[in-house]
Amino acid sequence: MSVPEPAGGEEAKQAKEAEDAEKFSFMATVTKAPKKQIQFADDMQEFTKFPTKTGRRSLSRSISQSSTDSYSSAASYTDSSDDEVSPREKQQTNSKGSSNFCVKNIKQAEFGRREIEIAEQDMSALISLRKRAQGEKPLAGAKIVGCTHITAQTAVLIETLCALGAQCRWSACNIYSTQNEVAAALAEAGVAVFAWKGESEDDFWWCIDRCVNVDGWQANMILDDGGDLTHWVYKKYPNIFKKIRGIVEESVTGVHRLYQLSKAGKLCVPAMNVNDSVTKQKFDNLYCCRESILDGLKRTTDVMFGGKQVVVCGYGEVGKGCCAALKALGAIVYVTEIDPICALQACMDGFRVVKLSEVIRQVDVVITCTGNKNVVTREHLDRMKNSCIVCNMGHSNTEIDVGRLLNLSCSTVPTFVLSITATTQALALIELYNAPEGRYKQDVYLLPKKMDEYVASLHLPSFDAHLTELTDDQAKYLGLNKNGPFKPNYYRY
Amino acid sequence: MSVPEPAGGEEAKQAKEAEDAEKFSFMATVTKAPKKQIQFADDMQEFTKFPTKTGRRSLSRSISQSSTDSYSSAASYTDSSDDEVSPREKQQTNSKGSSNFCVKNIKQAEFGRREIEIAEQDMSALISLRKRAQGEKPLAGAKIVGCTHITAQTAVLIETLCALGAQCRWSACNIYSTQNEVAAALAEAGVAVFAWKGESEDDFWWCIDRCVNVDGWQANMILDDGGDLTHWVYKKYPNIFKKIRGIVEESVTGVHRLYQLSKAGKLCVPAMNVNDSVTKQKFDNLYCCRESILDGLKRTTDVMFGGKQVVVCGYGEVGKGCCAALKALGAIVYVTEIDPICALQACMDGFRVVKLSEVIRQVDVVITCTGNKNVVTREHLDRMKNSCIVCNMGHSNTEIDVGRLLNLSCSTVPTFVLSITATTQALALIELYNAPEGRYKQDVYLLPKKMDEYVASLHLPSFDAHLTELTDDQAKYLGLNKNGPFKPNYYRY
Amino acid sequence: MSVPEPAGGEEAKQAKEAEDAEKFSFMATVTKAPKKQIQFADDMQEFTKFPTKTGRRSLSRSISQSSTDSYSSAASYTDSSDDEVSPREKQQTNSKGSSNFCVKNIKQAEFGRREIEIAEQDMSALISLRKRAQGEKPLAGAKIVGCTHITAQTAVLIETLCALGAQCRWSACNIYSTQNEVAAALAEAGVAVFAWKGESEDDFWWCIDRCVNVDGWQANMILDDGGDLTHWVYKKYPNIFKKIRGIVEESVTGVHRLYQLSKAGKLCVPAMNVNDSVTKQKFDNLYCCRESILDGLKRTTDVMFGGKQVVVCGYGEVGKGCCAALKALGAIVYVTEIDPICALQACMDGFRVVKLSEVIRQVDVVITCTGNKNVVTREHLDRMKNSCIVCNMGHSNTEIDVGRLLNLSCSTVPTFVLSITATTQALALIELYNAPEGRYKQDVYLLPKKMDEYVASLHLPSFDAHLTELTDDQAKYLGLNKNGPFKPNYYRY
Amino acid sequence: MSVPEPAGGEEAKQAKEAEDAEKFSFMATVTKAPKKQIQFADDMQEFTKFPTKTGRRSLSRSISQSSTDSYSSAASYTDSSDDEVSPREKQQTNSKGSSNFCVKNIKQAEFGRREIEIAEQDMSALISLRKRAQGEKPLAGAKIVGCTHITAQTAVLIETLCALGAQCRWSACNIYSTQNEVAAALAEAGVAVFAWKGESEDDFWWCIDRCVNVDGWQANMILDDGGDLTHWVYKKYPNIFKKIRGIVEESVTGVHRLYQLSKAGKLCVPAMNVNDSVTKQKFDNLYCCRESILDGLKRTTDVMFGGKQVVVCGYGEVGKGCCAALKALGAIVYVTEIDPICALQACMDGFRVVKLSEVIRQVDVVITCTGNKNVVTREHLDRMKNSCIVCNMGHSNTEIDVGRLLNLSCSTVPTFVLSITATTQALALIELYNAPEGRYKQDVYLLPKKMDEYVASLHLPSFDAHLTELTDDQAKYLGLNKNGPFKPNYYRY
Repeated sequence: MSVPEPAGGEEAKQAKEAEDAEKFSFMATVTKAPKKQIQFADDMQEFTKFPTKTGRRSLSRSISQSSTDSYSSAASYTDSSDDEVSPREKQQTNSKGSSNFCVKNIKQAEFGRREIEIAEQDMSALISLRKRAQGEKPLAGAKIVGCTHITAQTAVLIETLCALGAQCRWSACNIYSTQNEVAAALAEAGVAVFAWKGESEDDFWWCIDRCVNVDGWQANMILDDGGDLTHWVYKKYPNIFKKIRGIVEESVTGVHRLYQLSKAGKLCVPAMNVNDSVTKQKFDNLYCCRESILDGLKRTTDVMFGGKQVVVCGYGEVGKGCCAALKALGAIVYVTEIDPICALQACMDGFRVVKLSEVIRQVDVVITCTGNKNVVTREHLDRMKNSCIVCNMGHSNTEIDVGRLLNLSCSTVPTFVLSITATTQALALIELYNAPEGRYKQDVYLLPKKMDEYVASLHLPSFDAHLTELTDDQAKYLGLNKNGPFKPNYYRY
Repeated sequence: MSVPEPAGGEEAKQAKEAEDAEKFSFMATVTKAPKKQIQFADDMQEFTKFPTKTGRRSLSRSISQSSTDSYSSAASYTDSSDDEVSPREKQQTNSKGSSNFCVKNIKQAEFGRREIEIAEQDMSALISLRKRAQGEKPLAGAKIVGCTHITAQTAVLIETLCALGAQCRWSACNIYSTQNEVAAALAEAGVAVFAWKGESEDDFWWCIDRCVNVDGWQANMILDDGGDLTHWVYKKYPNIFKKIRGIVEESVTGVHRLYQLSKAGKLCVPAMNVNDSVTKQKFDNLYCCRESILDGLKRTTDVMFGGKQVVVCGYGEVGKGCCAALKALGAIVYVTEIDPICALQACMDGFRVVKLSEVIRQVDVVITCTGNKNVVTREHLDRMKNSCIVCNMGHSNTEIDVGRLLNLSCSTVPTFVLSITATTQALALIELYNAPEGRYKQDVYLLPKKMDEYVASLHLPSFDAHLTELTDDQAKYLGLNKNGPFKPNYYRY
Repeated sequence: MSVPEPAGGEEAKQAKEAEDAEKFSFMATVTKAPKKQIQFADDMQEFTKFPTKTGRRSLSRSISQSSTDSYSSAASYTDSSDDEVSPREKQQTNSKGSSNFCVKNIKQAEFGRREIEIAEQDMSALISLRKRAQGEKPLAGAKIVGCTHITAQTAVLIETLCALGAQCRWSACNIYSTQNEVAAALAEAGVAVFAWKGESEDDFWWCIDRCVNVDGWQANMILDDGGDLTHWVYKKYPNIFKKIRGIVEESVTGVHRLYQLSKAGKLCVPAMNVNDSVTKQKFDNLYCCRESILDGLKRTTDVMFGGKQVVVCGYGEVGKGCCAALKALGAIVYVTEIDPICALQACMDGFRVVKLSEVIRQVDVVITCTGNKNVVTREHLDRMKNSCIVCNMGHSNTEIDVGRLLNLSCSTVPTFVLSITATTQALALIELYNAPEGRYKQDVYLLPKKMDEYVASLHLPSFDAHLTELTDDQAKYLGLNKNGPFKPNYYRY
Repeated sequence: MSVPEPAGGEEAKQAKEAEDAEKFSFMATVTKAPKKQIQFADDMQEFTKFPTKTGRRSLSRSISQSSTDSYSSAASYTDSSDDEVSPREKQQTNSKGSSNFCVKNIKQAEFGRREIEIAEQDMSALISLRKRAQGEKPLAGAKIVGCTHITAQTAVLIETLCALGAQCRWSACNIYSTQNEVAAALAEAGVAVFAWKGESEDDFWWCIDRCVNVDGWQANMILDDGGDLTHWVYKKYPNIFKKIRGIVEESVTGVHRLYQLSKAGKLCVPAMNVNDSVTKQKFDNLYCCRESILDGLKRTTDVMFGGKQVVVCGYGEVGKGCCAALKALGAIVYVTEIDPICALQACMDGFRVVKLSEVIRQVDVVITCTGNKNVVTREHLDRMKNSCIVCNMGHSNTEIDVGRLLNLSCSTVPTFVLSITATTQALALIELYNAPEGRYKQDVYLLPKKMDEYVASLHLPSFDAHLTELTDDQAKYLGLNKNGPFKPNYYRY
């Protein structure tokens, strides 16, 4: 099967790959003394090969694997299946006799189910949504074709969509990130899933095609992560868009592609950008990085934070999270910024704003969170102290103009953060599917603030947080609806 | 002289009065034991009378008066001038022979000059702007009529406008907040200022009229704080708008009036809302309140923060500032919220989100920052511990449904915060005055992000902060102009 | 009456005076520009005159006077009594007909009583002790002669001692700090109090003598603050010591004198040093300064803490408190230290340890907390930025080698802190009075840890803190008594 | 060879084993739902078997092994040597022809050397001591017999002792913790080391004996960790004590044994308790736990700290560190305490002090740091939320009265902390070895404060911290020696 060129070409795909690896913290220890010279060749190979297709969810997965016995035993089970037959060539049937799926090994379903059940515990918001809306079935009649990472967490999402009335067909947006046992559990539960860990590029598009191109079933909703599914439908089955009520897209890259389509007048259905919803953004960046910077550094180095001099390049949400955590643990933190407003915030938050060259000789750790390129240059590396740690927390891997360095993956994304994303996706699907004619045109939309607030409210019970309700009188005084939205669109939380 | 009805009527005026008093922290100590019964009658009178016309700047002023000797000696000089003749009936001339002003006592000019010089030290951003633009005189030809609080800080603004080429005529936006000695210094320096402390309502409008209605001089820019000046021109001299290039308005109330005019199709010149610029908002709310909540509580009570249980109602910028400061000093802080997104932020920042009634019996301090009304009700007051402190940090005085309570003013606004505002106003005037035909229509605009960033950049040197500049290559990679703006408009700092 | 030389001579007295003024923050703003030159002469006079005899409690008092109406009205009443007759020459009788006291004006008793009642609210620990021990009257038979500041807070202590069975005679340890209305209330309640604000030196010793030298009454306990009372008894009535069961001393100076006596073999009764008990120390230094540094700076200057560069000289308890508070509010804090262990702590807490000369040019605020002299020298002052703030938080006024500087008093001690001290004193008296023969020799003792713990436990209810009790089994496992003490003497809390 | 009973018997040995495992965080996730039932049997076995002999240093080691490539390759090398011949039966010779050692495999020396070199980088204090004292050789003539964990970090200590003039013979204090490659490197460098990973109990005592019982060489100093070496000498070669100048002991258990000997009048040489030196204590507890609690929880669970409710049992140094870190990352922290002084500190630091039973139903995490037993009981476990995490940060493994629970090791000790300990040990040896006759009697001593300060000062350069020196005048004013000690012995840092 020939692979058609995606809208944005190879560049867009690489961008998505980098994005998948976005939280893949790049760590380096500068070592100058010859006696400690370590062979980096293999490491560099690994760096250029793996991260490009290793999504953050799979990272989360791989690390939790090592953290409990139940996981590790299972993992070894998976690994030991040195079954080299391609899933495409296997004949598999689930316990109800269906073979409307293609996974690595349907027999792993039971273990996958246990993983899904564990994930459900930290995704109570989604379960709660499932329960609240199960009677009314807001997705009754929805035929959703999806393309995302396939992990225990997305399985909770998929099964929620089903519980709300939808029919789902699913493929993986990343050739390495699929948890085979979870795919098996979904298949066993009746979801038409086509995905396994270690797909070839040809497998990748084959799986997508199996989801879209079905006799007697036509999708009316798309849930995409990266835009590959959307692209495939555009190129191969444009007629399908006549029935599609909307696209929900999560990734920066996919959203970028949609805006390009819209600009070019080629977007033929409404699309919802869930990447930029407030709740999701705060958790993906500020809250998540506040914890993962500590975790990542500790896992990969022997560093004590107390008294360490650290420079953080960039004071956006990611930088703010890193700075707050490091300061709290006794590090002395410097900030570099290009934006004077963010620089002023750094000042007021107690960080000296410097140019990197001013402090590069004295710092113990350099952390980049800019999204920019060449922030740390060869020249900076040359001037660093011996054993200075360099770490990239940004979304791209261009921030450090590396020479030969040791790199290590180290960061995880808690299930709670993934719960925020999955709930946002579910609500976006519900909104688009049920929106009255004319509410959404052929354009890209942000999630309505009211639904953004609803995502937040579904997550409050896990903190035992009790929201206050406006009285009628107060709502009138403030000119607000008692059920929200509570803030204007431009509000800066 | 009859006073015409303002656009928004009495209601709008009261709103502005409340706004002037916005940072006037309302403190109450709940005392139930009869033996400690204190006569509140007079206090309540004061509360209903004074704050309505006492602006925050004058509060800042009155407190700094008591803090240094130079001030207090001067203050006593002012007080001792028990000269009861109205300034309108006095014949006064400055040292250059001009009598184009009306102030309390021109002889106080020297002392006022000293105050202005002290203010200049903390307003180095404005002085810096003055120096950078003094050659090019971007306000050459500008005839600015202004109506603001008249304090040392606004004097620095007015003299900056003059240095940049403008001619200025100025009146006070508040009948109580004028620093007489500063007005004298401005008059001595040649500014046509019409203002004194303790104007009658008739005096108030008379002063505005003297600024606007001048033979042989016609304003082409308006700088307003509250909308009274704008209103007066609308009612009395609508023809003046033919020459006006734009209005710059700072207050919430004035901005609200402008939006109403715009909505009604009656706004006949461009207007700039400087109240909602990013830099100003952060300093007015988050940064300022983070410090003033501590200061205010300490000045008025004997409270130790360590171990105190505090409930903060509202987790917007003001609430966030209060919570951060109190937590940092060892208080145990609870939050109430109506907005689930803000509630989730409170959770992630380490605060239990509760309903007020859940904790009202146990807390030592209640702080309201909602902008809402009746947040603390009679019922709450009845259930509080004896000697519980109630404090309003919000912008309106409706948050607490008071019975008979002791209230105390206590908060100051540092000059640095006023510097941010004044610099924003100056840049808005420059932008509107120099904007090419067609950039601004008859509508209300926010300050362009680039100028917002410029305000921030002018304040960085006082922190010895060093901004990093993008390389050409990096700017291209990011798709940004090297000089900013660096963020999209919807960015949530 | 001739005044005998005290043991330590004039030096010791000056030390005590400095100690009284210990929390009297010395603030200075460095102003170099001639135009802002202010007349310092009078300020310097005030500085050298007032602080030497103005105790911290009276400061606390004078500031709380301005914070509530009940206080200010009363204060004006006090001030208006321009009655210039010496109390020693007045004939005053309380409502029960007794004239066994000497105060300014017995008619102020009612107002003083109200002040005592207000103080009682924040001294619930002492009230609780009063209630618990009222039945058993552990001080029955005790005849206590005391010499302390006479304020509402010490009145609560004195009346607690009486409630526990003691008879008390009291004078003031400071000629300026007496609250006349409180002394009147004590006199009205039957305490033999001899004190007024503004005593001459002759009055001072006369009052002490009236407490000690009484027909038919002989003290058996001494409570002293500064050692003047103890000294007087040594010099004039050494025979009294035959009946004295012990001395309780609070001040650094008084304790120092006692250790000297002990060393010289002249201490003829047991003495208890309550100054160094753990609970008291933590509150006097760490907790109190963590709050008062912010309060003090805000009251006297217009400074915003955010982004300010501050150097704190000394990282003992006082320095630790200052650093923690300033860092929490966004200041960038440097530390100077002479002790490498404290320096290492500063590092681990996130502060750069520097020499003062390294940062003196760049800092906005200098805070001294060393107890040392000449920490900030003329040379440092010359190199500071214009408008740099210099502040002494230390216990002596020698830290800054001043030239001509503006100084301002600004700090208060919350009643809660005074409650800790008073409770410690009461327990020390009970312990010494009831100790079995032989437990204490003619030496200086620290408060037994168990009683130190008891002071803490009496203050827990005001935080609604619930202590866990050891089970018998656990106590045995740990080798502890279930009721404490819980820690070895060398434990470093 | 028969193993003689140690002084404290089996109980003391178990205590030391528990102490070795002291930082071995015990983690448990309470899982009630039957579907998530996991087989705990094996885990429990591991729990009861491993931790007892797995010291914290070896944990540190085992985790750093997995964190860099150089380590992991080496580790696999080590593991793959499935050479089952006992080292005691091997004939090994180092490159200089010496066979005065017994290690696993002398060929691993080169890799061990690289590990030592890496450790040296973070132990610059020891290297600095080595350089400063290398000329004067303060340990010339010292014959030190040592028994400690044998890791890269202790190798740096041993080689420092040699560089200062000592001759050393060394065995391991733990049968599992030896890094074989490090032992090889020491042997290659000429140190008489007798240790390997996986010794039998017989091997353990055989190794100690080989260190002590040597023809023509007699130890004059003992460095012990746990007291086994000291015990062996007491039982088998008491005559050796005639030449021993002193014992330096690091562990709680060993120190306890020494105090018992002293109490029983059986201690026949001076001994130094380095466990309780100030610098070491702060790093072992407060600073180390502040970081390791976060690290440990993240490595073993998927928990986000933000918004989590946590109860910390015990507010000593360990508890203070845990609370500070968790609060800083947005957790809501409760404290339980038995000691009212520590409870009051918790209050002032912003933590609610509760009984465990009050919050056990609502918390997400329970952390014990008491040193007590049965702090978390069966009853508590029954009332916890599903998926509540239970974690023991205390020094003993008795705090949780476990049923069947999942446990995981997770914590590391940074090399910097080990550097503090090693430097303290070196200085204690120097002090004891060089002390003039009579300075130390047959008793147990704390490290002199001056040397404690010296340990701190040696670690300041790694923070680029600059100590201030007293002037002669200041030293005189304070009554201090310019070189320290700077604080009285009872000072509570």
